[in-house]
Amino acid sequence: MTNIAKMACVGGGVIGAGWAARFASNGIDVAIFDPDPQADRKVREVLANAERAQRKLTLAPGMGQGSVTVTADLAEALDGAQFVQESVPEREDLKRRTYGDIERHIGDDVLICSSTSGLRPSDLQADMTRPERLLVGHPFNPVYLLPLVELVGGDKTAPGSIDRAREIYASLGMHPLHVRKEIEAFVADRLQEALWREALWLVHDDVATTSEIDDAVRYGCGLRWAQMGTFQTFWLAGGEGGMRHMLAQFGPALKWPWTKLMDVPELTDAFVEKIASQCDAQAAGASPREMERVRDDCLVAIMQALKTQEWGAGETLRAYDQRLYERAHSANVAVERDFSKPIRMHETIVQPDWTDYNNHMNEARYLQVFCDSTDAFLPMIGVDQDYVAGGNSYYTVETHIRHLQEVAGLEPLYVMSQLVGYDEKRIHMFQWIHHGRTNEVLATGEQMFLHVDAKASRACSARPEVLGKLGEIWQGHQHLERPEGAGRSIGIKPKT
Amino acid sequence: MTNIAKMACVGGGVIGAGWAARFASNGIDVAIFDPDPQADRKVREVLANAERAQRKLTLAPGMGQGSVTVTADLAEALDGAQFVQESVPEREDLKRRTYGDIERHIGDDVLICSSTSGLRPSDLQADMTRPERLLVGHPFNPVYLLPLVELVGGDKTAPGSIDRAREIYASLGMHPLHVRKEIEAFVADRLQEALWREALWLVHDDVATTSEIDDAVRYGCGLRWAQMGTFQTFWLAGGEGGMRHMLAQFGPALKWPWTKLMDVPELTDAFVEKIASQCDAQAAGASPREMERVRDDCLVAIMQALKTQEWGAGETLRAYDQRLYERAHSANVAVERDFSKPIRMHETIVQPDWTDYNNHMNEARYLQVFCDSTDAFLPMIGVDQDYVAGGNSYYTVETHIRHLQEVAGLEPLYVMSQLVGYDEKRIHMFQWIHHGRTNEVLATGEQMFLHVDAKASRACSARPEVLGKLGEIWQGHQHLERPEGAGRSIGIKPKT
Repeated sequence: MTNIAKMACVGGGVIGAGWAARFASNGIDVAIFDPDPQADRKVREVLANAERAQRKLTLAPGMGQGSVTVTADLAEALDGAQFVQESVPEREDLKRRTYGDIERHIGDDVLICSSTSGLRPSDLQADMTRPERLLVGHPFNPVYLLPLVELVGGDKTAPGSIDRAREIYASLGMHPLHVRKEIEAFVADRLQEALWREALWLVHDDVATTSEIDDAVRYGCGLRWAQMGTFQTFWLAGGEGGMRHMLAQFGPALKWPWTKLMDVPELTDAFVEKIASQCDAQAAGASPREMERVRDDCLVAIMQALKTQEWGAGETLRAYDQRLYERAHSANVAVERDFSKPIRMHETIVQPDWTDYNNHMNEARYLQVFCDSTDAFLPMIGVDQDYVAGGNSYYTVETHIRHLQEVAGLEPLYVMSQLVGYDEKRIHMFQWIHHGRTNEVLATGEQMFLHVDAKASRACSARPEVLGKLGEIWQGHQHLERPEGAGRSIGIKPKT
Repeated sequence: MTNIAKMACVGGGVIGAGWAARFASNGIDVAIFDPDPQADRKVREVLANAERAQRKLTLAPGMGQGSVTVTADLAEALDGAQFVQESVPEREDLKRRTYGDIERHIGDDVLICSSTSGLRPSDLQADMTRPERLLVGHPFNPVYLLPLVELVGGDKTAPGSIDRAREIYASLGMHPLHVRKEIEAFVADRLQEALWREALWLVHDDVATTSEIDDAVRYGCGLRWAQMGTFQTFWLAGGEGGMRHMLAQFGPALKWPWTKLMDVPELTDAFVEKIASQCDAQAAGASPREMERVRDDCLVAIMQALKTQEWGAGETLRAYDQRLYERAHSANVAVERDFSKPIRMHETIVQPDWTDYNNHMNEARYLQVFCDSTDAFLPMIGVDQDYVAGGNSYYTVETHIRHLQEVAGLEPLYVMSQLVGYDEKRIHMFQWIHHGRTNEVLATGEQMFLHVDAKASRACSARPEVLGKLGEIWQGHQHLERPEGAGRSIGIKPKT
């Protein structure tokens, strides 16, 4: 969705490798420069976790996976790169020197975006030959999942560079936020830093352990922050009086000693050890890679949950999904439907609220999936909004489901559909729910639909154009084998 | 799940009404004291939003809805209350006076929990006759959804009071966090307050608008905070080096000017107006009630998403669901039944979120009603939580539904069930969904259940006690007429 075929990541740590994963999953080839002899192994581990998470994140037809190479040769990494993301360690002198090296190997119009968490781009670009193409593109870990990227220009950054970076990042499914005033740590990290300093004091003063402090966040305000920020949350807390009421009520607390932020605790060896050992205990023996997978699965689930609400990070995901589908559809638009086999009718995931306490898809949702598939079928035969508005529709009169396998929340599903028979008033369909990865059949659904005059509430013949469309499908499907299980009735046969 | 039949909320604002909703949805009668003449209307609005959210939160059988009354008479509110939650405005003098009033109307052993966001319980309990029963139970808005409640005792609080409060709150589906060291603002609000002060400076200094700051949270770190706190997040950022590496790398930034928290901005009229008008603009014309529903739907979706991962707030929800199911099952076990006719198995209403755009019950929800009825049947024949924990269960393998009539949202339904046959491994059931007022049959459902060894994932014989119970029912049901529609298969018969 961008015109970029190859990009370079300068620095292949957690952030650099995360960028590589995001670009590669959008079909862009990535070359990573990193002098660390362990870089290739570390990058591959991040890529493996990233691919795993992305497969769960979206069912949309992807743009193919770009290649990822790791090299200790900067010139090789930059050769042919149309975009550069710099993620070297957080030292101004190192970054400034690195830009000089980069500029020797790339074209004049290639953007360089820095992943710095807080250094000012005006300082970073001071020694550059073409400083107008340098800006901050500050991501959040894991870069391959979290949508936020802060864009910050320096004194010499061209406005067009900001626009171009915004376009590129948005095409990767991200939410670019242009920070218009240049300050250290920008916006998000100032907020994080404030919370972080307070948290350090709470551990320092033995008020709570790292685990208790984390719980205070993730069982309470953290759930709010995932969908509304602090202002909208407090605006709501003001009730009918809004933020004015909220500030009148809680404003005085700003003067109370509710924070120790007037100072920062000294990072003595003993204090570092205290925090580190509490954090290690929290992990309860899990490795960082294992905990990353827990985190990624939770982030995927949260973003998909927000997608069902078309809100915040979920809306970003939905829009990205939609673009991927549109792209795939427009690529497919000329393709005739192939009616020589069952039709791949519908794809979905097991929605989070479809699961029982044991995290299996609730029995009734199998029928939901068949219904959603029917909703995709009807427009195909001309029973669209206009047809329904005209007073006719098909009603389901009978359903027969065979439940063959359990399936867990957030797993991908697709439905295959076969027309088993039809006449002027009826459609007889047989459908299979498959698991999206294993292709295993999870359930079969056989249904009879009756064409009705909705106002009179009685059966009537479908219109000729609908029967014509059904006829086209029947041309192919009449030659298919009758599905195993079709026409089956329920009963216990007497033993012989 | 607690022994509390009635509790009192002293103070019926956003927090008090939220508490009322949470207690009432757990089957506990609630009396709210609030002198505001508008209190009843405001409380009803919160209750309506809360009931709407809770119906979406869990599919588990509820404990019935407790009654909620609102009164300006404190004695009336407290009469017979076995638990008191105080949520009056955040003024120490008012709260201390209120406890004196409360103590005159309740038994000596009734707990009083304060919703204060930050006042010290040692100060609050100073004038009390029985200070040992006062503690802080600090919730987070919306109280009916967010699981966190901070428990803080004062100098005179009895340890047993903390234990009792923990048990009560946990039974309501909450996550109690005992803050062991008494400080102002406890843990969660210190973290929130730090972030809040920094956010105020960013608006004050025109670095960003309230909307941009909220976006910096909800598209980035807010998504992380919903599932891991700041320590576990940074531990992960340290990669293989964990928190020690993270502190070595980012520790120096603590000395950099990445925060303005050495001071707080003055809340001048102009500054208040700036924040308030930016927040109003963010709402884009939506009312607080409307935005509350957006927030609630997002929170429900996020918690359900985390439930699929058995993690954090989702794990709290899963455990709560499980307890509700267990309770419903054990309640059904002892009931005697008349087996000379079909059994009236299950009653419900068409939930508002079960309806399509035309306010008809969604096709898939018919199956939901049959499943819920089955959930009531199984414990009746001894397939209860213990039986399932022992490794056996019945799985639905086949379902046949005839959809006979539409039914609108909020209409009452009941299900009649007939045993059509059984053997050692199978149960063949036929059920009818009736309209609760007209008795009209809306749908029939025929199902086959297979007895399984869940671990081995294969069919096996049910235990003798279950077969015995089935035999008791069969004694009666074998003499009933075979239901019309039973054993029917789906198909279009060729015309003759």
